Amino acid sequence: MSLFTGLSAFPLTPLHDDTVDERAFAGMVERLARAGVDSITALGSTGCAAYLSPIERARVARLAVAHAEGTPVFVGIGALRTSEVLAHAESAEKAGAAGLLLAPMTYQPLTPDDVFGLYETVSAHTGLPVIVYDNPGTTHFAFSTELYGRIAELPRIASIKIPGVPRDPDTARDHVTTIRAAIPAEVTIGVSGDAFGAAGLVAGCDAWYSVLAGTLPEPALRIARSMQEGVPDRALSESARLAPLWDLFAEFGGSLRVIAAVAEHLGQAPSQCLPLPIRGLDDEQRRRVATVVEDLRLTG
Amino acid sequence: MSLFTGLSAFPLTPLHDDTVDERAFAGMVERLARAGVDSITALGSTGCAAYLSPIERARVARLAVAHAEGTPVFVGIGALRTSEVLAHAESAEKAGAAGLLLAPMTYQPLTPDDVFGLYETVSAHTGLPVIVYDNPGTTHFAFSTELYGRIAELPRIASIKIPGVPRDPDTARDHVTTIRAAIPAEVTIGVSGDAFGAAGLVAGCDAWYSVLAGTLPEPALRIARSMQEGVPDRALSESARLAPLWDLFAEFGGSLRVIAAVAEHLGQAPSQCLPLPIRGLDDEQRRRVATVVEDLRLTG
Repeated sequence: MSLFTGLSAFPLTPLHDDTVDERAFAGMVERLARAGVDSITALGSTGCAAYLSPIERARVARLAVAHAEGTPVFVGIGALRTSEVLAHAESAEKAGAAGLLLAPMTYQPLTPDDVFGLYETVSAHTGLPVIVYDNPGTTHFAFSTELYGRIAELPRIASIKIPGVPRDPDTARDHVTTIRAAIPAEVTIGVSGDAFGAAGLVAGCDAWYSVLAGTLPEPALRIARSMQEGVPDRALSESARLAPLWDLFAEFGGSLRVIAAVAEHLGQAPSQCLPLPIRGLDDEQRRRVATVVEDLRLTG
Repeated sequence: MSLFTGLSAFPLTPLHDDTVDERAFAGMVERLARAGVDSITALGSTGCAAYLSPIERARVARLAVAHAEGTPVFVGIGALRTSEVLAHAESAEKAGAAGLLLAPMTYQPLTPDDVFGLYETVSAHTGLPVIVYDNPGTTHFAFSTELYGRIAELPRIASIKIPGVPRDPDTARDHVTTIRAAIPAEVTIGVSGDAFGAAGLVAGCDAWYSVLAGTLPEPALRIARSMQEGVPDRALSESARLAPLWDLFAEFGGSLRVIAAVAEHLGQAPSQCLPLPIRGLDDEQRRRVATVVEDLRLTG
């Protein structure tokens, strides 16, 4: 079975005084490995890769592999400049990564040909499988299904991480089926946007690339395992139970600030663990997050 | 008079084989100084600062000052992480910059408080005047007039670079007047988006932060000097004459790819001078740019 199926957990890279808190990060990775996630993706958007230097990223990749206890580690290599992406790919490969995650980061808007060229270059320079990372909320680049298809034909493209699925179940299934028809059979489709995790798996996605799982693997595993055991209704009801958390993600501009507050609340990360200028949630917002964590019994 | 008035020229930072072409860059800066622009802003969006390493940026800042022949040089210090912004500010100050240009770059969306905090921190750490750089097309951050006002009250904030003005002249004047009322009297307002340069100056802006001027200073100077000589109609008609160029900016996703093709066509920059993954214009598009350059007699 492809490595790029099941539950992939996206941990934070917590900072303390503008320096990577290596002990906290290693602890998070060990916790994920012990919880039994199928893979760990370090240095995703949640891992704040975009904010870290090449040296910090190489170090975090090595730490992730060292503490993953054999769980496959994928490493985010996105950067604004192609040559920097290649340098990250090389350091991830040296660190022992099992795969690479690549988002087409932008400052100047990119064309579809620019983005295709980026994947073509990376695909020609690395020996590792590559996950195509479609995250328009951070990259502001919109993939078409046709572009998924062109990129997925390149060597080493192993998976496409899509940004959620439509809310209606039939429309969601059609959406995943349409993408599936455009890409080679061995390329998997993974859903992200945690509120869509269960719905994406039910709609036919092979993997769930999950922020939630990076800090709270247990509830995410209950959803992923329910699907693997052929009980989609249990997956959907567990996801529905977590609605207060999804609501906070939506209200506070995405998952990052909320999951950082959860990790800080649970003592997994030091306080103010996000890179400035991102200030994280204020005290009142943090109290609301803590209440949801307690109400949903997400503490352990 | 404030340094942050008149025409500021934004040169490219041309690359050759993924390395800064220092000779081409120095030549561009010298040409701008000799043309008589009021200031030169290195490492703006057009200067591709977002794509360069801290070492490259420090070197480009030093080169700009060394070749500006006394023309004031402003240096772009935007980066995703506050600590990196501070490092760029320090290297720009050491290079002899007369001011700093700061855009709130984003990967994760920023809140108004995040952005205020960024300017507050930079303002507390630098001795140089700072231009607030509002460029939603690249940063995806939307400033409000209220936020302009909060930031402009900070020490060392010298100017606000706004992203164009409304098309209707009266609405444009009202827009500039509204911003003016929200900021201290000594803070200037500069227009950008070259198609709006003349209209912005006519609407009351103090400065034009110009991509065009970075490669073709003469036509930009004709517009700026017409305004300074009290002949706004001449400024507007010169801008109208350049409409085929503004049309290409609009058609090809902004000014960057077009101005790079112009610089390459005129021999100011090596071919394919933009950082990958930005491929620049294709051959047919370049032919159209060359035709406009020749038709408008922009060659010298």
